[in-house]
Amino acid sequence: MAEASTSLRGNSLNYSSIRKLLPYAKKAIESGVKVIKLNIGDPDLKTPKQFIAALHDWNVDPIRYAQPAGEPELIASLLDYYHKCGYKELKTEDIIVTIGGSEALSMAMFAVADIDDEILVPEPFFANYSILAQQQGIKLIPIPTNIDNGFRLPSKAKIEKLINKRTKAILYSSPGNPTGTTYNKQEIEMLLQIAKEKGIYLVSDEVYREYIFSDDKHESLVPYMDEYPNNLIMLDSFSKRYNLCGARLGMLVTKSENIKDIVLRLANGRLSGGLIDQLMGSALKQVPNSHFKRSTKELKKRRDVVIKHLNSIKGVKTYIPDGAFYLMVELPVNDAEDFSKFLLEKFRVDNTTVMLAPGRGFYLTKNKGINEIRIAYVVNSEELIKAIDIIAKGLVAYSG
Amino acid sequence: MAEASTSLRGNSLNYSSIRKLLPYAKKAIESGVKVIKLNIGDPDLKTPKQFIAALHDWNVDPIRYAQPAGEPELIASLLDYYHKCGYKELKTEDIIVTIGGSEALSMAMFAVADIDDEILVPEPFFANYSILAQQQGIKLIPIPTNIDNGFRLPSKAKIEKLINKRTKAILYSSPGNPTGTTYNKQEIEMLLQIAKEKGIYLVSDEVYREYIFSDDKHESLVPYMDEYPNNLIMLDSFSKRYNLCGARLGMLVTKSENIKDIVLRLANGRLSGGLIDQLMGSALKQVPNSHFKRSTKELKKRRDVVIKHLNSIKGVKTYIPDGAFYLMVELPVNDAEDFSKFLLEKFRVDNTTVMLAPGRGFYLTKNKGINEIRIAYVVNSEELIKAIDIIAKGLVAYSG
Repeated sequence: MAEASTSLRGNSLNYSSIRKLLPYAKKAIESGVKVIKLNIGDPDLKTPKQFIAALHDWNVDPIRYAQPAGEPELIASLLDYYHKCGYKELKTEDIIVTIGGSEALSMAMFAVADIDDEILVPEPFFANYSILAQQQGIKLIPIPTNIDNGFRLPSKAKIEKLINKRTKAILYSSPGNPTGTTYNKQEIEMLLQIAKEKGIYLVSDEVYREYIFSDDKHESLVPYMDEYPNNLIMLDSFSKRYNLCGARLGMLVTKSENIKDIVLRLANGRLSGGLIDQLMGSALKQVPNSHFKRSTKELKKRRDVVIKHLNSIKGVKTYIPDGAFYLMVELPVNDAEDFSKFLLEKFRVDNTTVMLAPGRGFYLTKNKGINEIRIAYVVNSEELIKAIDIIAKGLVAYSG
Repeated sequence: MAEASTSLRGNSLNYSSIRKLLPYAKKAIESGVKVIKLNIGDPDLKTPKQFIAALHDWNVDPIRYAQPAGEPELIASLLDYYHKCGYKELKTEDIIVTIGGSEALSMAMFAVADIDDEILVPEPFFANYSILAQQQGIKLIPIPTNIDNGFRLPSKAKIEKLINKRTKAILYSSPGNPTGTTYNKQEIEMLLQIAKEKGIYLVSDEVYREYIFSDDKHESLVPYMDEYPNNLIMLDSFSKRYNLCGARLGMLVTKSENIKDIVLRLANGRLSGGLIDQLMGSALKQVPNSHFKRSTKELKKRRDVVIKHLNSIKGVKTYIPDGAFYLMVELPVNDAEDFSKFLLEKFRVDNTTVMLAPGRGFYLTKNKGINEIRIAYVVNSEELIKAIDIIAKGLVAYSG
C-alpha cells in the first residue's frame, strides 16, 4: 500500500506574487479591517452597459460549445474594432479567440518554444508570464530595465547579447504591466529589427492599448504583420479595456499560417471557450468610443494623484508612466514584501490598511525588485490618497 | 533577415479527430446539404431554465475576476449537489472549479506527471485526452479493451503488466466516452487496488455520472477519498449533465493537499475562470432532480433506437452501453474514416447526410479502431433513425 507521488514540475511551480499576500489580507478583512487593494489589476470602473444588456437579452438555448477558434459573430466585431484602430491589414482568419489573454499567451509560447527553449522578456514583467512559461518548460530570460529611466528598453546590442540558438522569441507588454511604460516607434522598430535579423518571434501583449496618457498613439505590431508574417504575434484581451476581467476573452492575432495551425490544434484540444462570454463580447461593436476616452481620462487623473502623493514621501522613487494603470515604486525599506505584510498584519489608519504587490514577484533576476512594489491604481482618487497616506505613515512606523 | 521557426511539439500535436472532418461537413452544408451531426457530444437537449434565468437577472458590475479556485457561491452549490449524490465526505476545500472538464484534466495530468512520465488509460478513450497529454509531454499508455465484450476492463494482472516506474496514474471515464461503458463496483475496486499497491494516482472522469440506463448506481471514486486521500482525483463538468457545453465549468475534486496546492498554483497562473459561467452555474441548486430523470429517459430511448436500427444493418457490430450518450460501432468497411468522408463528400439521401467521428481517433494503438466509428446520440429519435438509414444505404453505395 503506497501513496502516490506528485510531479516535480508541479511542486516547483511559482505562486502568483500578485496574490501571495491574499491570506494576510483575508485575515485582516475578517477581523473587520478595511483593506484598499492596489495589488491586482481588477479596475473598479463599470463594465459598459452594452455587455450586461447582452446577458439580459440572452436567447441561445442550449448553451452549446463555442467554435474552437471563436464564434464568428465575435470575430466579426473584433475585426471591425481592429479596423477602427487602423489595422486595415487584418482579416477574419488572423484572429483567434482564446480563454483570456492568459490562454493566448500560453498558446503563443507553446507554438514558438520547445522544452528548455528561451524567450526574452523586458524585466520587470507580469508575474504570470513566469508561471505560464514554467508550466511549459520554457525559460524566460530577462532583458534588464530599471526605474531610473522609467524602465525604457536597453540598446539593441545589449538585447542581442542575450540571444543564442535556444532563443525563440522576445515577449513584451506595451503599455507595460507592471511598469506602465509605453514603447515608442523607435523602440518597437528596434525589437522588430532584432526579430528579423535573428529569425525569432516578436510577441506583443497589447491589452492596455487604449490606455495611453500622452498624445502619442499606441505602437502596435499589427501594421508590420503583412511585411513580416512569420515573425509577429499580437496578444490581446477584453479584460482591462472593457472592465471585463471575469469574462475570459482573449485574442491571438497573427498572419503566420504555421502559428495559426498550431493554435487551432491547441484550441481543439480544450474544445471550446465560453459561449456566453463570446456572444456577450460581440456587443463590443455597440460600445461608443467615449467609453475609452472617459476611462483614460479617469486613469490619467489617478496616475497624477498617485505620483504627486508618492513624491511627497521621503525616500520613495518613482517615474511617470505613459499608459496602463500600474506603477513600480521604490520604497525606502530593505524588503518591500516584508513591509507589505507588515501593512496587512499590523498597520492601520482609521482601521484601514493597504494591499500591495511586492516588486520581487515581477523579477526573475535574483535580488532585483526587493525594495520595490507595484501599485495598480484601480480605485478612485480619494481612496488612492488615503492609501498613499497609509503607506507614508506605515513607512515611518515600520522603520521607526 | 530570417523568418522565425515554430516549436516541434506544436507541429507534432494531433488534430482533434472528433472535428477532423469539419471542413468536409462545412463544404456539404455550404452546398445546401443537411448534415446530421453525430460526431460531437453537444446534446440538443435544452439548458435548464434556471441557468438562463441567472443570465437574465445578472447584476454584478463590473464583471470582475472570479476567485482562482472558483466563486464561493458556486462551490457551495456544488457541495450541496455532491452531498445529495451521497458523497458526504466532501468539504468546501476539496472542490476546485476549472475552465471546463478539459482544464481539470490538464491540471490533474500536470500535477501527477513530469515530462515522459506515463499515464494508463483504457482504450478506446476520449480523443482529447491524447492532445492534452501530448501538450504536457506525458505519454498515454493504452489498456486494451474491445467491442466483443462491450469494452470491459481486462484482468488486474494484464493491467499491472503495463505499469513501470514512470507510470504515475490510471485515468478512466465511467460512464465512458467514447464507449458508454460503465464500470461496476468490482472494476472500480480492482483499479483502486492497483493504485494502492503500485503507489499511483487513480483519476476518474465522471462527467456522465447522471446518465446511467441500468438500475445500478454510479460508482464514484469520491466515497474512497477519505481512506485513500493521496491516490484519488475525480474530474467533473457541467457540460453534459446540464446541457451547458459552452459554459466552461469543470471541477477537480480531491482530498490530496499536495494536488490541491499544485492545482491552485496553476489556477493562479491563469488568474480566473469565467465569472459569468460560475455565478450562472450556482443556480444548479435550483435545478430539480426531474431534469436528470427526464434527460436520462430520453437518452435511454435514443440508445435503444440506435442499437435496434444498427443491428438491422448487415455486418455492423455493436453492444449495449449502460451510460453516457456514445456508442462505438464496428462497420463492414476497411477504413471507417474514409467511409465517413465519403458520406460527407458524396452520399446524400433526400439531400441529407451524416457526420460521424472516425474510431481510430479514440485509439493510440496503431491499426486499432480503423473500422469503427463513434456515434453520439445527441439528436432526437426521428433524426437518429434517418441518420442510421443513411449509414445503411451509404454502406451499400460505398461497398458497391
